[in-house]
Amino acid sequence: MKVNGQPHRTIWLEGKTVKLIYQPQIPHKFEIRTLQTYQETAKAIQEMWVRGAPAIGAAGAFGMVQAVLAAPPQKFQPFVAEAAESLKSTRPTAQNLFFEIDQVLACIEEAASWEEACEKATAQANRSADESVGACETIGKFGAELLKDGDSVLTHCNAGWLACVDWGTALAPIYRAAKDGKQNFVYVDETRPRGQGACLTAWELGQEAIDHAIIADNAAGYYMAQNKIQTVIVGADRIAANGDVANKIGTFTKAVVAFECGIPFYVAAPLSTIDFDCPAGAQIPIEERSPEEVLNTWGLSDQGEFMSVRTAPAKSTAKNPAFDVTPAKFITGIITEKGVFHPRDLHQLK
Amino acid sequence: MKVNGQPHRTIWLEGKTVKLIYQPQIPHKFEIRTLQTYQETAKAIQEMWVRGAPAIGAAGAFGMVQAVLAAPPQKFQPFVAEAAESLKSTRPTAQNLFFEIDQVLACIEEAASWEEACEKATAQANRSADESVGACETIGKFGAELLKDGDSVLTHCNAGWLACVDWGTALAPIYRAAKDGKQNFVYVDETRPRGQGACLTAWELGQEAIDHAIIADNAAGYYMAQNKIQTVIVGADRIAANGDVANKIGTFTKAVVAFECGIPFYVAAPLSTIDFDCPAGAQIPIEERSPEEVLNTWGLSDQGEFMSVRTAPAKSTAKNPAFDVTPAKFITGIITEKGVFHPRDLHQLK
Repeated sequence: MKVNGQPHRTIWLEGKTVKLIYQPQIPHKFEIRTLQTYQETAKAIQEMWVRGAPAIGAAGAFGMVQAVLAAPPQKFQPFVAEAAESLKSTRPTAQNLFFEIDQVLACIEEAASWEEACEKATAQANRSADESVGACETIGKFGAELLKDGDSVLTHCNAGWLACVDWGTALAPIYRAAKDGKQNFVYVDETRPRGQGACLTAWELGQEAIDHAIIADNAAGYYMAQNKIQTVIVGADRIAANGDVANKIGTFTKAVVAFECGIPFYVAAPLSTIDFDCPAGAQIPIEERSPEEVLNTWGLSDQGEFMSVRTAPAKSTAKNPAFDVTPAKFITGIITEKGVFHPRDLHQLK
Repeated sequence: MKVNGQPHRTIWLEGKTVKLIYQPQIPHKFEIRTLQTYQETAKAIQEMWVRGAPAIGAAGAFGMVQAVLAAPPQKFQPFVAEAAESLKSTRPTAQNLFFEIDQVLACIEEAASWEEACEKATAQANRSADESVGACETIGKFGAELLKDGDSVLTHCNAGWLACVDWGTALAPIYRAAKDGKQNFVYVDETRPRGQGACLTAWELGQEAIDHAIIADNAAGYYMAQNKIQTVIVGADRIAANGDVANKIGTFTKAVVAFECGIPFYVAAPLSTIDFDCPAGAQIPIEERSPEEVLNTWGLSDQGEFMSVRTAPAKSTAKNPAFDVTPAKFITGIITEKGVFHPRDLHQLK
């Protein structure tokens, strides 16, 4: 996808460094940052310089490459095993993180020497990033078939290309439809507390000249009840074997209202998001983040300064679950790189 | 209710002036402002210095007193009729505004002289404010009977005493229960875009030492699904004859999710909120407010400066409906000063 008219990826490997679009200052400032070590990459995942399940997966894989490159050649196995644990502990909910790290780990474990491990890990991480881009592009193709010219789509949080290596998951169908000449309008949930919809999704759509409006999270139900929204598409952080979906806090609410209003509700995600070892959504751990995210809001001041303001009373506290689980019964279909599946048919993909 | 330990009302008449708690800077600054003319009072309603259906109703009535006091004694009738139209045009959704203005207007129309009109209007507006306080206190009594010791309650927006003259509607049962010795916890929806939950409700509850936590609007569904919430209570801006309720944007969504989760959903409102001339919710006009409310967030900077920050991209736009309509079928009961009624039984109150 494009930034200021130029094609771009969200994250990539460059020698021993990981380069990424620094997301906390988007939409106000576009900046590439360089991560020198796997520890820096782990910190970047934890502090959400990069976020979105597929992008976190790529960051984890690239971090593993950094780990093996930095490992003592004679005893690299325990070093990378420890690095893998460290990288996995950064975010508890995103399935892709564990999946991609394990893929690189498997290559390293098979390697006869450190040199071979370095080579195999690098190849695996890059191949995985390329495959992720391909999967997202294919998700776009399958998803675009569900959109009619003129349809309005609701999306929540950011499951666009910034959440992936490229293309996006929930937004890929919209980008594909636009390339196919369809005109679709996107209602963008602000997605408090971190505002990924207002900050990231609106910015991405603007860069690709997709017509959209930001709405308060509270307004999505209003537009659904008014028949202004024809389809809802969101991403996923983890999908359980029974089709329950963990995604950004608020997704469950949108799904329940869409169900009530008879509006199709789709989840777009690559197969690497499905956790077949997890029988149902209740088993997915939900990350609880800092109350400060709710009590304050970040943005740009009139003077062009990037800052946070306190919205809540000085003495009040907040609760801040980052994700929720949408039961499979509210989900019309899961759009994957293998096609669109009913949640109950996921086992066919195992 | 109390501010810094002292009893307080939200709005009152003092001679020819209207005095009110200036709400846009709460919770960061507590300030009483004085409105000298009915035009200033109209502007204060429009710019939301005072908000909440019953408080807007009181402001409208007090504004009418200011109008008659300022009217030319020989030709006061057309002057006050014009003032009534001006005051009514400030906010299109709140039923109480029209109701209270019409009450004062009826007194003025019956008066044989300007002196009598001044006297009757003043008496009516003050009586109406006192009755409103009494109604809210009684709503608290009926509502508290629905709360068990230890229950957690979800509320949306601010339907506390700041939204009324005193006591509140949705929060009155919680205040009553606390005075009766019950311990209840309140989940406070932030209520974007204007954040009345985070700013006003949390502040009110803190002043009365009620245990609470602010949550992102997106998180309410999560806590309902987790059985952490036993009851939802919200206020109303207008109730149609069939029991449909117009209230702050997002109310519909909470009601649908509460219904899905089997959690009772109550609307607390005085009888003056019911518009028997409005057959159903679809006929209630919904105010569309400035996109700037969605694109920016107000708060207090680290330096103690009250300011707004831009959260959205410079080029993105927003849509901002201020209210939505919750169909009667999602509402367990309407808590009024005459008792708790099923929405379909409202005609008994006519």
